[in-house]
Amino acid sequence: MSRKVFLNGDYLDENEAKISIFDRGVLFADSVYEVTAFIENKLIDFKPHIERLERSLKEINIEYNLDYDRFLEIHKNLIRFNNLENNEGLIYFQISRGNIDRDFLIKDQKIKPNVFSFTQKKSLTNDPKIEKGLHIISLEDLRWKRRDIKTTQLLYPSIAKTKAIRMGADDAWLLDENGMVTEGTSNNAYIISNDTVITRQLSNDILHGITRRTILQVSSDLKLKVEERPFDIEEAKNSQEAFITSASTLIAPVIKINDKVIGNGTIGPITKILRETYVKISIKNGI
Amino acid sequence: MSRKVFLNGDYLDENEAKISIFDRGVLFADSVYEVTAFIENKLIDFKPHIERLERSLKEINIEYNLDYDRFLEIHKNLIRFNNLENNEGLIYFQISRGNIDRDFLIKDQKIKPNVFSFTQKKSLTNDPKIEKGLHIISLEDLRWKRRDIKTTQLLYPSIAKTKAIRMGADDAWLLDENGMVTEGTSNNAYIISNDTVITRQLSNDILHGITRRTILQVSSDLKLKVEERPFDIEEAKNSQEAFITSASTLIAPVIKINDKVIGNGTIGPITKILRETYVKISIKNGI
Repeated sequence: MSRKVFLNGDYLDENEAKISIFDRGVLFADSVYEVTAFIENKLIDFKPHIERLERSLKEINIEYNLDYDRFLEIHKNLIRFNNLENNEGLIYFQISRGNIDRDFLIKDQKIKPNVFSFTQKKSLTNDPKIEKGLHIISLEDLRWKRRDIKTTQLLYPSIAKTKAIRMGADDAWLLDENGMVTEGTSNNAYIISNDTVITRQLSNDILHGITRRTILQVSSDLKLKVEERPFDIEEAKNSQEAFITSASTLIAPVIKINDKVIGNGTIGPITKILRETYVKISIKNGI
Repeated sequence: MSRKVFLNGDYLDENEAKISIFDRGVLFADSVYEVTAFIENKLIDFKPHIERLERSLKEINIEYNLDYDRFLEIHKNLIRFNNLENNEGLIYFQISRGNIDRDFLIKDQKIKPNVFSFTQKKSLTNDPKIEKGLHIISLEDLRWKRRDIKTTQLLYPSIAKTKAIRMGADDAWLLDENGMVTEGTSNNAYIISNDTVITRQLSNDILHGITRRTILQVSSDLKLKVEERPFDIEEAKNSQEAFITSASTLIAPVIKINDKVIGNGTIGPITKILRETYVKISIKNGI
């Protein structure tokens, strides 16, 4: 039952994987991460995930040499050691700055990052809840202002998601000071109006989603118009379709926003073809 | 040389104190903390620190029964086990939600918080750098919007402090969207104008400093006028004195803000008497 996880070079029983209380990830959330999906024993969008992790490390000046082959080997080993070759799921990978006595000052002194990774079995292409579509509520975006860096400062997204579920919904879209949607709690947000796919443009305000990038490419390939700009909840409520994307949901239709049913309350035709095409292409291009 | 630290009921060598990679503090920064000063074998403002920790836990719905006597015993033991009775320093205390498989949703399922604590020896009443006064620069405040909750989401304050030091200063004051000072990277910010002590009023925008509370009380006792309101950097640069407060600096004079020397570039007379009175009263009331 117990998973094998990766920690600082070793593959350990999940109950034995522990890090120092002096890790700067523990004390300052000084750590970054990635989540990569696997389907049919293939890693989805693997290379862009590494590239984003490298960017996150660079943005907060953690020196760590991310070797592509080594990184791939760890991911493949974790799938194999946990007998997940015929399953779907996610691989989580975290790098923190390392262990050093507590100080707000990030010293020049070189310390060894703590690196760990673990698998989560999860139905991705056949999740009944996702087929049915999600009910989204809107909440204020109280996160820090560098959401483009994928750090472990995730308490607010976690609280917002929990609040949405306690209120009978599935997730929340977060609103900036101007009432415009930034993104979901752990996914990018989209609406479709006049057959145009609309999603907020890249900036420090949102995560630069890997699935987002592929979806926009797929949209173009399907000759759909794409607009990258902010939208508010009123526009979203009046859209013809809506959806979210992330490594853990791929594309999930949104069928209700606050009290307003979107379209006919089931997955819309454009979202459906985007999802089918995305899954097909991603598995084909997976490694 | 190695410290004894507290972890989940045990006193361990600091190198053996490790927590699970599945701790929600590690994965989501779902953890809160306190830092309490000790001087002459007395804990400073101990009760308010516990009360604030209780409030932080409540705000993010971590269920943990903080027993005052037990909490005090841990603090006293750590001082004793590390032979710090004749030293000054800080005791750090962290509580995270506990270990559970990674999920943004905070489940109803009860899990056991991870609790740890450690000492840091540090000169508090006789720090030459503090006597000399601090050079502060101003930086944007990019933190999340619930700074009243003392969580471990400290990456930005840590980056800001590091940036200030790299630029040749000692610390940074953070500016909100309107250019008003919120607070320092890990301390509250004050100016004195017309013999009035001015500091931002309590709200979700700043930490409700324990030292801040005592300093305002001391100010009143000394018949100083107190104004709790925001101020901007221009007003700060033109103030007669400026200072910061925190458990780890007590009161530290600010002698330069950006390029502007404050007063005559040394600790001002009001800051001096506030510091002296604060130290005296705090030790007297310490336990």
